[in-house]
Amino acid sequence: MTTTLVFGHKSPDTDSTGSPLIWAWYLSHTGTPAEARLLGEPNTEARFVAERWGFDLPPVIEDVEAGQPVWIVDTNNPAELPPSINAADIRGIVDHHKLTGGIETKTPIDITVRPLACTATILFDLMGAEASHMPEGIKGLILSCILSDTLEFRSPTTTPMDRGLAEQLAGELGVDIPSFAAEMFAAKSDVSSFSEAELLRMDSKEYAVGGTELRVSVLETTAPKMVLDRKDALMAAMPGVAAEDGAHEVLLFVVDILNEEATLLVPNERVKAIAEASFGVTVTGDSVVLPGVMSRKKQIIPVLKA
Amino acid sequence: MTTTLVFGHKSPDTDSTGSPLIWAWYLSHTGTPAEARLLGEPNTEARFVAERWGFDLPPVIEDVEAGQPVWIVDTNNPAELPPSINAADIRGIVDHHKLTGGIETKTPIDITVRPLACTATILFDLMGAEASHMPEGIKGLILSCILSDTLEFRSPTTTPMDRGLAEQLAGELGVDIPSFAAEMFAAKSDVSSFSEAELLRMDSKEYAVGGTELRVSVLETTAPKMVLDRKDALMAAMPGVAAEDGAHEVLLFVVDILNEEATLLVPNERVKAIAEASFGVTVTGDSVVLPGVMSRKKQIIPVLKA
Repeated sequence: MTTTLVFGHKSPDTDSTGSPLIWAWYLSHTGTPAEARLLGEPNTEARFVAERWGFDLPPVIEDVEAGQPVWIVDTNNPAELPPSINAADIRGIVDHHKLTGGIETKTPIDITVRPLACTATILFDLMGAEASHMPEGIKGLILSCILSDTLEFRSPTTTPMDRGLAEQLAGELGVDIPSFAAEMFAAKSDVSSFSEAELLRMDSKEYAVGGTELRVSVLETTAPKMVLDRKDALMAAMPGVAAEDGAHEVLLFVVDILNEEATLLVPNERVKAIAEASFGVTVTGDSVVLPGVMSRKKQIIPVLKA
Repeated sequence: MTTTLVFGHKSPDTDSTGSPLIWAWYLSHTGTPAEARLLGEPNTEARFVAERWGFDLPPVIEDVEAGQPVWIVDTNNPAELPPSINAADIRGIVDHHKLTGGIETKTPIDITVRPLACTATILFDLMGAEASHMPEGIKGLILSCILSDTLEFRSPTTTPMDRGLAEQLAGELGVDIPSFAAEMFAAKSDVSSFSEAELLRMDSKEYAVGGTELRVSVLETTAPKMVLDRKDALMAAMPGVAAEDGAHEVLLFVVDILNEEATLLVPNERVKAIAEASFGVTVTGDSVVLPGVMSRKKQIIPVLKA
């Protein structure tokens, strides 16, 4: 039987690294041999999490063969998937993002999208009674994905189902959530080795807002000063990144996890206009603080006006 | 609270009439006031089923208001939905068709697609423990939707889950499946009151196959002679229907439920070429019998070659 490949989105974060490993375990456990893949180098938090729970990082792939059986987790957006995705044999999709359109299948497949904080929460739910067979490493991955996507339950995307599952798994694993989450966030915050262009693309999604193509980038960190000290260099790198990626502007939101606020860099008049129209703020300098803003999905994308 | 509207696809059959009634019951039962709507006049089987289980036919709507909360059942294809669907507040989608693409949402919503024969089977599964509160009429609708979509378990789309649920509900309701299914199919087969153009559009979906736009129409009947006696008039009506609907050809498959075969009408050389390339048959006259072909989704669409 051909091995089924499971992958998340490009620029893999913890959920898009952990969820393929989780679902590949479940598929294999229930009789469908499956392996996880990555669509790019994972971020520093995802590396920390994989190592913490004893997993090798899955191999990175550039594309998929025609007819290759695949499961897609943590995205439904073809722009975040391999170029030949619609030629693959897509067996299923599990996701928690808005419906983008663009993926087409030849026959009906399994699709589950839920407005939960984390894909791994949905995967656990889909496992049903089989979840009782999860090894410790899989439980640890689910816990890590939830803590990452909810920013330790601070993000408004957090649902009682995400939180309840994380607390249950932490109890079973004997993990202290505050100290483990602090370790994860410290790993994510260590961005010293990345160039400005890499930081702008690390956790980034493209959206068209009324004809304007925006690369909406987020850096979640417990050490915002480390990023904001590089503000001038980051803004200087924006026009090049935008031009290369076919976007009009890069919006960089530096999310301060502990203080629960985001700082948006404002390199020019167009971004200033977007910031003021979208968030109801007055911008006076080259950045603006947005109190309480933690979630791109819930607090940024739905309000963006260009 | 604004009432949520639940609807299926245009040209409603039994599943697209029953499933909105079933899901509107469930949503209302669980605290979200909801009502069913239809996107056109239902077929004769759907009318029979609604009356049999004591439901008024839902009102027919032409479009939805911007911001209207809606659930979509039994389709994910914008071509089969109201023109303003993407301006509505889509709360969820439950379906069992291939992913078409084209529906977009602003935030993550509930989406469940499963490769089962019938949407109503998925709805029952989603109800979980609440299903124990279903009144008789809702159970009857689910049973009817399954018998309709599986052609009383004859269609290759039938899964053990569809069949098991139908048999369980029939037992609870004291319904004899063979005789009830015969009544349903007799209602569906009584097409004497419809014009040729209406028959060609009654259960019809548009597909693009390599640049050729096809209107793929199916008539499921226990009385194929009644339709095939009108073969010449049906073929004469095809060019007009195709032109009006922006299609190159109309493919009409007359599905003989009891003998488990389909007859495809062959009005011209292009349809002959499509039939021979797709089904591996040799066409000698103006129709061709396709033994065992019962399901557009499973046995027609995946093999069509233009």
